[in-house]
Amino acid sequence: MEPEPEQPHPERLPLRHPGGVSELVLGAGALAAASDELVPWLAGRRVFVVTTPRVWALHGAELQPLLAAASAVERLEVPEGEAAKTLGEAERLWRAMVRAGGKRDSRLLAFGGGSVGDLGGFVAATFLRGISCVQLPTTLLAQVDASIGGKTAVDLPEAKNSVGAFHHPHAVVADTRWLATLDARQRRAGLVEAFKMAYVLDGPQFGAFEALLPGLLAGDPAALATAVPEAAAIKARVVERDPTEQGERALLNFGHTLGHALEAAGGYQGLLHGEAVAWGMLFALRLARRRGLSAASAQRLEQVLRVFALPPLPSVEPETLLTLLGRDKKAREAGVGWVLPVAVGTGRWGVVVPPTEVAAELSEFLRAPLR
Amino acid sequence: MEPEPEQPHPERLPLRHPGGVSELVLGAGALAAASDELVPWLAGRRVFVVTTPRVWALHGAELQPLLAAASAVERLEVPEGEAAKTLGEAERLWRAMVRAGGKRDSRLLAFGGGSVGDLGGFVAATFLRGISCVQLPTTLLAQVDASIGGKTAVDLPEAKNSVGAFHHPHAVVADTRWLATLDARQRRAGLVEAFKMAYVLDGPQFGAFEALLPGLLAGDPAALATAVPEAAAIKARVVERDPTEQGERALLNFGHTLGHALEAAGGYQGLLHGEAVAWGMLFALRLARRRGLSAASAQRLEQVLRVFALPPLPSVEPETLLTLLGRDKKAREAGVGWVLPVAVGTGRWGVVVPPTEVAAELSEFLRAPLR
Repeated sequence: MEPEPEQPHPERLPLRHPGGVSELVLGAGALAAASDELVPWLAGRRVFVVTTPRVWALHGAELQPLLAAASAVERLEVPEGEAAKTLGEAERLWRAMVRAGGKRDSRLLAFGGGSVGDLGGFVAATFLRGISCVQLPTTLLAQVDASIGGKTAVDLPEAKNSVGAFHHPHAVVADTRWLATLDARQRRAGLVEAFKMAYVLDGPQFGAFEALLPGLLAGDPAALATAVPEAAAIKARVVERDPTEQGERALLNFGHTLGHALEAAGGYQGLLHGEAVAWGMLFALRLARRRGLSAASAQRLEQVLRVFALPPLPSVEPETLLTLLGRDKKAREAGVGWVLPVAVGTGRWGVVVPPTEVAAELSEFLRAPLR
Repeated sequence: MEPEPEQPHPERLPLRHPGGVSELVLGAGALAAASDELVPWLAGRRVFVVTTPRVWALHGAELQPLLAAASAVERLEVPEGEAAKTLGEAERLWRAMVRAGGKRDSRLLAFGGGSVGDLGGFVAATFLRGISCVQLPTTLLAQVDASIGGKTAVDLPEAKNSVGAFHHPHAVVADTRWLATLDARQRRAGLVEAFKMAYVLDGPQFGAFEALLPGLLAGDPAALATAVPEAAAIKARVVERDPTEQGERALLNFGHTLGHALEAAGGYQGLLHGEAVAWGMLFALRLARRRGLSAASAQRLEQVLRVFALPPLPSVEPETLLTLLGRDKKAREAGVGWVLPVAVGTGRWGVVVPPTEVAAELSEFLRAPLR
């Protein structure tokens, strides 16, 4: 396939991190554009492809020209969605990799959505104390957010993402053509993260995303090929400044504090991750309004999220959510640190909100989430 | 207790690594000497102590003055020896830590031998993508080798140390008084690693260890308090130069290529790790002799190991060992890279030996291991 004439060429963004550089290649035709980097990286190596049956059936054939360079290819299929992110799946993969003769200079490709990237990245981070991997994100959420920045993890029954590592990929190749097979709900859930980043980190970009919104919602290829590199660039820059989330990187958790609690309360069923984050942002806006965020600024994000037509909140007691909030991974001994916007494009992280205020605001929110 | 007059004061060695500095405090009374660093690090934090029932019963009371500074202390007991290094044990610890309210700024102490350090370090490396830990090694092997340098791992049924991470501790505190409760066999197994390092990295130090040998074998506290910081210093310097084992650090694997295969062949029962490494060094000396190592140089190490009165080799077919050698973690796609000494104090790593030569030499070695 030739790129559609209206689609921009893939973008290249190097992401510098303490261990070196990850090359990000993003846009329509990114896979073909990255083959000059990927072929020598794969040449003569044993390659493990972590993917799902669905992703492989849809797009696996596109990898064949690259995989031909490998000395051996082992495909490791995992379940769709959060079900992939268990210690049991990780163990199955590690053992299969040892038995297949995996070595320290073997390669791993994580080819799928955010769950495949999180699991595949974690397995690469810890197999023989770390092998090199490339992220090939196929969903919008993974392309704009999850695949970038080296965070990897699996879940425990008690809490999501509670076992993991920072492990930067050799490259991230996000071909926006893969997004054509996403349904509208998955697409919206991914857009949430793009708007999230811009809202707390880049005001002008938030405006640009607002202007692109109709095209993005419709799945227009040119709009997606424009927005994905722009969102990824916001994330890459903040990760460069704060690779292990000692400070500013925490801004990316905007909406995630309550979002994670909502996901846990629903047993990770019902709401998609992006949808839970959207509800979490709407709640954070309320706390932010009491700390100086203007009504007009809050309304801009509320308006976008209203267009997304979120599924309803799970019916859950405030007490349950408050307990889950206390388990938040970002919590310090001092308490939960909230990410709260100050204005469009600027946020604060580590904001400690009195528990009584959270409890009161939460009861009201659960009663009438959309004002 | 006052330090015995003949024992030197604890040594302090900073180990610089890509993520910062680990402070090594080693010798008689190291725990007391390190309390100025440890108390502020623990103060007000939730602290997880990974240990074994035996180590806790013998030495746990000594930690009490430090632990008094913590906001909460959770003791996590694991089995003795290699049985601790399973994914099942890691999972049990991670889940207990989530349930006990562990946070990113919680602390972990690994208090025990090499297995406790490997498991505890791995759990710290991956809990919430990494929390800060301190290694408190109680065996000679852990004090001179395993606790230093940030390597952590658990085993898979297929291969030892196959799941792990590099995670440098905040500090390593090796109090040589803890060694008084070791039996002579454990002590000898630890000494193997000290002689190993000096033999391939520091000739004058090898001579110094030879001179100390009678005292070390007898468990003389002053000899141990001298040798532990000296061995740790060799290791710390090579880790600083090559933190992730891209090159020179591989010298520390001298004797480990065959050693790991012997351990695996015996189902990790029978030989202690240090004993398997000693047999592995004796085998490597044969390969090295064919590549220019002088008879006199080989004899110096053979003489030391002879004094150690190693238990016999497990009865195992050469073919089994050759298969296990192919699985070696340090193997690259190109084949197993051997560490072979060139002279006392100098070694080469990544030496590829033709498989036919390994097979022939191995048959002879198994028939008559001590020439």
